[in-house]
Amino acid sequence: MKVLACIAVAATLTALAAPASAQFAKPEDAIKYRKNALFVMQQNFGRVASMASGRTPFDAKVAAESAETAAFMSKLPWAGFMADTDKGETKAKPEIWKEPAKFKEASEKMQGEMTKLAAASKTGNIDQIKTAVAAVGGTCKACHDAYRNQ
Amino acid sequence: MKVLACIAVAATLTALAAPASAQFAKPEDAIKYRKNALFVMQQNFGRVASMASGRTPFDAKVAAESAETAAFMSKLPWAGFMADTDKGETKAKPEIWKEPAKFKEASEKMQGEMTKLAAASKTGNIDQIKTAVAAVGGTCKACHDAYRNQ
Repeated sequence: MKVLACIAVAATLTALAAPASAQFAKPEDAIKYRKNALFVMQQNFGRVASMASGRTPFDAKVAAESAETAAFMSKLPWAGFMADTDKGETKAKPEIWKEPAKFKEASEKMQGEMTKLAAASKTGNIDQIKTAVAAVGGTCKACHDAYRNQ
Repeated sequence: MKVLACIAVAATLTALAAPASAQFAKPEDAIKYRKNALFVMQQNFGRVASMASGRTPFDAKVAAESAETAAFMSKLPWAGFMADTDKGETKAKPEIWKEPAKFKEASEKMQGEMTKLAAASKTGNIDQIKTAVAAVGGTCKACHDAYRNQ
């Protein structure tokens, strides 16, 4: 019974009377989801970027694992930018919902560069990692400039 | 130059004078990391649990994707339970650091059941999914009872 209660709570938290297509129970959950996914991604990317810049010593294994996690995480936040999530605890600009195709393109560019960084990190070649980190950094910045309030 | 500045910021955020072995720049980052990773996991697991309980209609594709993401996410939070992260914005009980082997075992049980749920969700068989959801739910509850303050 306790297990069933636990599952019921999980289900309720996620799906309060939600239609089948809804990814999130409430707009606040969607906002929290994208922010949380981006933070986990940033922490992993930042670890590799820190090695690439020489701020922390290079550890090939940690770099490869972190870059792989960052690449996986880079696919997740976008589901959270659903309708009615332009207000509340968010820095997201209205442009995201005004030009969804452009926003999608920007997000896909980042995911593509993050995948390249994961591949570069697997080689253990620091020069390849540096190049890939720079490319990812460019896509972070482009998207933040266009779609995030300071 | 802007790209380099962006990378420098990412690196600084993550690695402020951190030693090579440090996963996080500050204890607060580690706490936020584990909470954020657990939230992303819970949202994905909850979506599948909601289908298993009949609260939302079963969508095999969404269930399979969500369970796969939950299984990936289940591996991430544990790095955040590092030393000096028992205080601050956390419900983590001191037992986590008093009996690390038992805590690790509990976390690995959950990861194992989540991996089984991902496999079950790939089959598209709702009865297998129900069984696997119940098993995951049991490991969530066991760990929360032992290691999380209400």
